[in-house]
Amino acid sequence: MCEASAYIVRRDGREELILEGVDIVEPEEGSGGAIRIVSIFGEQKVLRARLKSMSLVNHKIVLEEAG
Amino acid sequence: MCEASAYIVRRDGREELILEGVDIVEPEEGSGGAIRIVSIFGEQKVLRARLKSMSLVNHKIVLEEAG
Repeated sequence: MCEASAYIVRRDGREELILEGVDIVEPEEGSGGAIRIVSIFGEQKVLRARLKSMSLVNHKIVLEEAG
Repeated sequence: MCEASAYIVRRDGREELILEGVDIVEPEEGSGGAIRIVSIFGEQKVLRARLKSMSLVNHKIVLEEAG
């Protein structure tokens, strides 16, 4: 299985796991900078964040909380 | 293997395969909006683009050429 775990780096620098089994990552249109992530289980989160880094081989997506 | 193929949607709407076996996707720091993608073979591309959509299950990353 090729899903990834998504983490967010909070403004204070803490890295927090927000969703496992992530399939889809895409901008939330019309949101002015939010990102939508959707897991293979259909769970969805929309975060005011930007992509910081992603490694598919390591199954890890890191978002950075928007300021 | 969990890499993905990366495509770019050009300003004229054409979708073009730009890199296969992509592992890493990240913003190119200091570039004012470019994205770096790196394959498992070490090939790297930096594009003036933004993330349009991504499905890890479908192994597909779609970027959109910046205006």
